[in-house]
Amino acid sequence: MPSISDKGRAMPSSPIRKLAPYADEAKRKGRRVYHLNIGQPDIPTPDVALNAIRNLGNKVIEYSHSAGNESYRRKLAAFYNRIGIKIEYSDLLITTGGSEAILFALNSCVNPGEEVITPEPFYANYNGFATSAGIKIVPVTSYIQDDFALPAIGEIENKITSHTKGIIICNPNNPTGYLYSKDEILQLGEIVKKHDLFLFSDEAYREFCYDGAAHFSALDLEGVDDNVIMLDSVSKRYSECGVRIGALVTRNREVIATALKYAQARLSPPGLGQIAGEASIDTPPEYFREVNLEYTARRNFMVDALNRIPGVLCPKPKGAFYTVVKLPVDDADIFARWILEEFEYKNQTVMIAPASGFYSTPGLGKNEARIAYVLNIDDLKNAMEVLGEALRVYPGRTI
Amino acid sequence: MPSISDKGRAMPSSPIRKLAPYADEAKRKGRRVYHLNIGQPDIPTPDVALNAIRNLGNKVIEYSHSAGNESYRRKLAAFYNRIGIKIEYSDLLITTGGSEAILFALNSCVNPGEEVITPEPFYANYNGFATSAGIKIVPVTSYIQDDFALPAIGEIENKITSHTKGIIICNPNNPTGYLYSKDEILQLGEIVKKHDLFLFSDEAYREFCYDGAAHFSALDLEGVDDNVIMLDSVSKRYSECGVRIGALVTRNREVIATALKYAQARLSPPGLGQIAGEASIDTPPEYFREVNLEYTARRNFMVDALNRIPGVLCPKPKGAFYTVVKLPVDDADIFARWILEEFEYKNQTVMIAPASGFYSTPGLGKNEARIAYVLNIDDLKNAMEVLGEALRVYPGRTI
Repeated sequence: MPSISDKGRAMPSSPIRKLAPYADEAKRKGRRVYHLNIGQPDIPTPDVALNAIRNLGNKVIEYSHSAGNESYRRKLAAFYNRIGIKIEYSDLLITTGGSEAILFALNSCVNPGEEVITPEPFYANYNGFATSAGIKIVPVTSYIQDDFALPAIGEIENKITSHTKGIIICNPNNPTGYLYSKDEILQLGEIVKKHDLFLFSDEAYREFCYDGAAHFSALDLEGVDDNVIMLDSVSKRYSECGVRIGALVTRNREVIATALKYAQARLSPPGLGQIAGEASIDTPPEYFREVNLEYTARRNFMVDALNRIPGVLCPKPKGAFYTVVKLPVDDADIFARWILEEFEYKNQTVMIAPASGFYSTPGLGKNEARIAYVLNIDDLKNAMEVLGEALRVYPGRTI
Repeated sequence: MPSISDKGRAMPSSPIRKLAPYADEAKRKGRRVYHLNIGQPDIPTPDVALNAIRNLGNKVIEYSHSAGNESYRRKLAAFYNRIGIKIEYSDLLITTGGSEAILFALNSCVNPGEEVITPEPFYANYNGFATSAGIKIVPVTSYIQDDFALPAIGEIENKITSHTKGIIICNPNNPTGYLYSKDEILQLGEIVKKHDLFLFSDEAYREFCYDGAAHFSALDLEGVDDNVIMLDSVSKRYSECGVRIGALVTRNREVIATALKYAQARLSPPGLGQIAGEASIDTPPEYFREVNLEYTARRNFMVDALNRIPGVLCPKPKGAFYTVVKLPVDDADIFARWILEEFEYKNQTVMIAPASGFYSTPGLGKNEARIAYVLNIDDLKNAMEVLGEALRVYPGRTI
């Protein structure tokens, strides 16, 4: 039997999905499972997108241009220009989800063996993409007591070696919900300029900023046009995760030309998803106002509820729809599995994502979990009740 | 300015698409361009697929399972069982086009620096995927005078080194249209068993076999369950290239588990495409009978027309919808560009894919081109007339 590759063996399992079999088992037992583990919003996809799909006029669903349909690229560039990000339509490629944008960016810019620095906890799939590309992720730890703010610039600079090729951030952050300030982004701009690095800025959650806070895009930085690569996705913006449409945006012509070669090898991004994505740009502003109010209410409710559970510490994030909480448990991996396997409260249970998978420094995040507030408030209320009860009776509790 | 990666620099441009700017320019001049360069069929997508999309009932377009919707996986496994390929639904993953299936298979099985043998000319994007995965493609040349049959087994074995991890074939073949015989597949089965290699079998064109010839799948081989990985796509079968849905199929549990980790990192395959792909399985048999008749007629017409042009040699392939032809020109790359840039006949021109990009041995395929018969016979007729005229007046002609 031929052996699989060492790289394949090194591929991490998704920390968000690895407990899925236990959730399935709980469901088979007839239990209601509240999914706090995954960023799958229940918010309806905008009607303009659904209608565009339902009105499909094609007789043949053909390949598109490898960079995506030109009409879509032009409309998306106009969308960015309206929100103050000055780019041309030739500065972007449509990708298969934000995932492919990340992979194209890393493959185009970073050689196997080279390093990319990222604040941790970080989006766990960066590990998968880095392993796939043979790249090393170098973490700089951010801390729950600082609300997971950007680590001091000095700490980031300390991690820069001759192998460092870039810095990757997610803003607003998944998993922490932290929204980087303009000042923090300016600092990162200085570093990448000084050390001639790429700044990969994953801005999939740009529209999810609360309490009137403004998002400052890395593409708004001046004097670093060749350094900044922005990675985007329609998944969260329009609650259409399943269409798998994203974008790679950069003013660096060499990076666009290189990423296009990766794009050509896989022929084209999903055609039906592009129709949905293009139509979504016409989503009326009320949609976002309502969604923003809804998420603000959910966050406020959930953060309060979590902080009322004895021993739980939960920051109040200003963006995205996640928070990383500290739990009064010995080991959040064991706890998360225990809730699904051993626990139930009024025939309900919850699925959370243990935070260890979002750190790459061994041992960190052991008593933390990522919790998504993508359920409606009634369900969140039940989920918080279940979680509180679980923490009260869990044998490995630490208070 | 930070430099792009060496790997990105090494990524090949698509030989099928690199002449596109010249075709665009010809169109701007008002010329009709017949596209013989790309496998984009004009055959209508089956109504069952289009209707499934138009009847979309979802309120939210959600992520699917990373391996694809279970209902689709079960239905696809039943489809394979009906055509005699015995597999379980857990033996397959739904991928983003056949492209992603190839990439997952290579990444899961082959380490950077290791080698995969393939008969050349071969599907040019294998070069892109191999470069992306850091893998070396080792060609074994097949020849136009043999109709591009599988090279002698001895020649394949001569290429096996301690770095060889597998053999990749495309059957029926893109670019040559060659349909491997059962005997040839049995021989490949013996080799991979003897040398403990993977056999990657790209069967995207399985339904396109002519003259009553039968397709023998690598999954029909006995005793090599752990060696064979079949790569599939709905693009050609249902003329829905744009949905970007494929599959990786293997009875090797370790490979499926490893490929699933790559699948989890990118979250899920396209959701709307999966709806189309799943519905397509109910395409009535008449559809395929008609399509087969149509392609047979096109092939017969085109092969005859090509062989009537002085100095042209065109085999009569038994599968897919391509043929590699020998042209009486000094350099097919220069000729292909010249037709678009300098030539027109009755305000028409043609785009062909120079074959050099389908070979990796330098210098081979210099006077060959891949021609796709994906146009209706009227258009093909015009295209052949244009091509004949071009070859009559081309300054670099060799007869």
